Amino acid sequence: MAHYPNTPGMTGVLRPLRIEGDILDMEVEGEIPAQLNGTFHRVHPDAQFPPMFENDQFFNGDGMVSLFHFHDGKVDFRQRYAQTDKWKAERAAGKSLFGMYRNPLTDDESVKGMIRGTANTNVMVHAGKLYAMKEDSPCLIMDPLSLETEGYTNFDGKIKNQTFSGHGKIDPVTGNFCNHGYAATGVLTDDVSYFEIDPQGNVLFETFFKVPYYCMMHDFGLTQDYVIFHIVPITGNWDRLKAGKPHFGFDKTLPVYLGVLKRGADGSDIRWFKRDNCFASHVMNAYQDGTKIHFDTCEAKGNSFPFFPDIHDDSFDPVAARPFLTRWTVDLASNGDEFTSIEKLTDWIDEFPRIDERFIGQPYRHGWGLVMDPDMPMDFLRGRASGFKMNKIGHWDLVARTEDCWWAGPESIIQEPCFVPRSADAPEGDGYIIALVDNLITNYSDLVVLDALNLPAGPIARAKLPIRIRSGLHGNWADASKLPRAA
Amino acid sequence: MAHYPNTPGMTGVLRPLRIEGDILDMEVEGEIPAQLNGTFHRVHPDAQFPPMFENDQFFNGDGMVSLFHFHDGKVDFRQRYAQTDKWKAERAAGKSLFGMYRNPLTDDESVKGMIRGTANTNVMVHAGKLYAMKEDSPCLIMDPLSLETEGYTNFDGKIKNQTFSGHGKIDPVTGNFCNHGYAATGVLTDDVSYFEIDPQGNVLFETFFKVPYYCMMHDFGLTQDYVIFHIVPITGNWDRLKAGKPHFGFDKTLPVYLGVLKRGADGSDIRWFKRDNCFASHVMNAYQDGTKIHFDTCEAKGNSFPFFPDIHDDSFDPVAARPFLTRWTVDLASNGDEFTSIEKLTDWIDEFPRIDERFIGQPYRHGWGLVMDPDMPMDFLRGRASGFKMNKIGHWDLVARTEDCWWAGPESIIQEPCFVPRSADAPEGDGYIIALVDNLITNYSDLVVLDALNLPAGPIARAKLPIRIRSGLHGNWADASKLPRAA
Repeated sequence: MAHYPNTPGMTGVLRPLRIEGDILDMEVEGEIPAQLNGTFHRVHPDAQFPPMFENDQFFNGDGMVSLFHFHDGKVDFRQRYAQTDKWKAERAAGKSLFGMYRNPLTDDESVKGMIRGTANTNVMVHAGKLYAMKEDSPCLIMDPLSLETEGYTNFDGKIKNQTFSGHGKIDPVTGNFCNHGYAATGVLTDDVSYFEIDPQGNVLFETFFKVPYYCMMHDFGLTQDYVIFHIVPITGNWDRLKAGKPHFGFDKTLPVYLGVLKRGADGSDIRWFKRDNCFASHVMNAYQDGTKIHFDTCEAKGNSFPFFPDIHDDSFDPVAARPFLTRWTVDLASNGDEFTSIEKLTDWIDEFPRIDERFIGQPYRHGWGLVMDPDMPMDFLRGRASGFKMNKIGHWDLVARTEDCWWAGPESIIQEPCFVPRSADAPEGDGYIIALVDNLITNYSDLVVLDALNLPAGPIARAKLPIRIRSGLHGNWADASKLPRAA
Repeated sequence: MAHYPNTPGMTGVLRPLRIEGDILDMEVEGEIPAQLNGTFHRVHPDAQFPPMFENDQFFNGDGMVSLFHFHDGKVDFRQRYAQTDKWKAERAAGKSLFGMYRNPLTDDESVKGMIRGTANTNVMVHAGKLYAMKEDSPCLIMDPLSLETEGYTNFDGKIKNQTFSGHGKIDPVTGNFCNHGYAATGVLTDDVSYFEIDPQGNVLFETFFKVPYYCMMHDFGLTQDYVIFHIVPITGNWDRLKAGKPHFGFDKTLPVYLGVLKRGADGSDIRWFKRDNCFASHVMNAYQDGTKIHFDTCEAKGNSFPFFPDIHDDSFDPVAARPFLTRWTVDLASNGDEFTSIEKLTDWIDEFPRIDERFIGQPYRHGWGLVMDPDMPMDFLRGRASGFKMNKIGHWDLVARTEDCWWAGPESIIQEPCFVPRSADAPEGDGYIIALVDNLITNYSDLVVLDALNLPAGPIARAKLPIRIRSGLHGNWADASKLPRAA
């Protein structure tokens, strides 16, 4: 029977959920705007069976995809496991067979060589399919409405890379799905590829390049003409895996790089800029400004990931861990490899940045993200409910240089927000922010809908779940016109 | 969209759940005994759409069936709506079409004449099918494992009665499923039928009789040779339905009757005994003792149902409402219609009585039931969590005249327990008590497993749900040998 370990990563706020289910026409407080016509998919890690290693990373769990289908002013809920090869093998065995997070040395012999992915990082609709993504594995294809799994794809052999990162972006100009994969030729390798997939799902090109050092390349930036890669020393090596340590650790002795590659060019043409050591993971947006490139990311002085402590001494500094939205600028007209400027854009501690995605790669004005209580920075993944304080949604007007927020209250945490435009041709930022708000006392989650440019007014509507959805990673809106069949 | 009313019957502890879903291999604390090999089905009312009338009875909701499938020391969970004709019509319409609890005058014109049942009262496996029952309607047939609905049946036209009560009992000697239906010839009629269905699902006989007055005949007693009906004045009439009052009200001016009918005899042979006014609903057991019949029920001095207040003045007395396990005895050798004795068996306030069902209709020793906090008697259905104190499981040894209990703690309520014998030939009471324990703070439910003869030792195992199952009515165990196919 399923005995889950009594560890912080498996109890309290991080208790497994494991329920697949459906609710037709969710209970709603307030009114769902009639303009909301489409789907919001999001995903969380949810170990189908107790993990083989008690103190494994909380996010080494099987991807559980939640679908909120908005139509006719109603919201239907559906939740299903992403049926990865791992999930299927373990389902058949009735137990876990894959070991520690990104450490194939810890797997059961019976699954050696199998794709280890969990499809638990991001879900996005493209070309009528739902791409369920985890950066160590290929793309898993699911049906956007039934949530049935088709399986892994390498796009008719056209993607040679072994991995498909979680933060693929749809270029609003071309409609291409743009993504990269690191550890492209195997675990811990320093090969990366960049590729684009057209709106019909055909791979247009893939190009490979080497990075200065192996690191976790969780996200990237896209501009109209360039793709931008930040190299931050969340790094790893075989010695760590052999020793059973976490795959990644943070190395504060290494510099940070920003790679700029022209879209469509050969990977060998990538140009590297360099700066002092820091931490950065998610990217809000990037865009060109003449020969300059602005790259907006959440930067921290030190490592933000307590679960990947210092690679030399296993230390973790929760004050240095605090990320702030920051603009990195490099100039392609410069001769050196220095950054042009580094500008902190807020003093709110923030992560999970989002934008109006019709402005990906373009000059933009509005950003949103989760704002954290300064008294409890970034330690949430170690601890219980009391340590989990990501409970505001912030809005930044990067032109007026103003910020405002909505506070969900002391009992709640908020999962990554998502912007939905009011209409296809609405001005930038005119629309809604949707986000899951998890009450840690009642253990209920509400999907809240806010006016994106008036967050302080609070939710217009709450679609109420009778469960608390486990803390997840990322999710995306798809307009009804992008779905494979009529809603 | 689904706006549920902000009433006590739809918020707090009675908030709708509405999720259909599956969990493979539930998270368990402790160890599930390997002997537990079979299914526990239970059901609760769970309005698919907001009710047409805000202050309708909490239990006028669509039946949501939960299945806990025990096998190989594991427990799988499944939950599905009973797809009654009402459920299907409302699903198609996207809203409620049926009005108040058992008041057809309040229905939408489009559903006039349709079966109004919700299948939300009890679920029991017989002849390889799951019978989902509500006392105002025919029997709904479901698959015991998939929980797919087949539909209503009148058993090849052999049951003429329009209703099929929720407390059918399987005679351990013959294996027959024995049940009655009241309001047998239409809403508010004083016709009742009694029928038996053999282990293969064939109706053996049905016989009709009249009752002294129309009343809610929620349960009955079965002995080896007789069937016993208690007539308690939870009564109703067309004037109430026309006025939009609750279908039932309690009439303290009427006497109580006990009808005794020989199994297989014509209904006209029923013999009525009579006593003073009181309240009684559920039956623990009944058995013959020479010419005497003992009938053990939870008796209260006054009405126990706050939602069906006094028929004359709408009053409700929460102290008189407290039920106590009581033995009613009548003697078939007597000439009059008096009861021989009425013996209170406990001073614990208790309801939801259960036994080792291998002893239905037989002399028996052990009974179990829910015990209530005396400070908050029977008012739970009016109120919120704070008023809901059914939080002990009691055990009565009716030979040794001892009692003991397990207390789930101040934050919890317990749903109806169910006894499972350790093995087919284990002595009476040697086995397990299983019950849902709902934590009103965390909003999680655990299915607990206790040693039936050592309740104070507390749970042997807890199968843990990530949701709180809405307060339900009744449920039953089926041994794996009774299921339609191998587990």
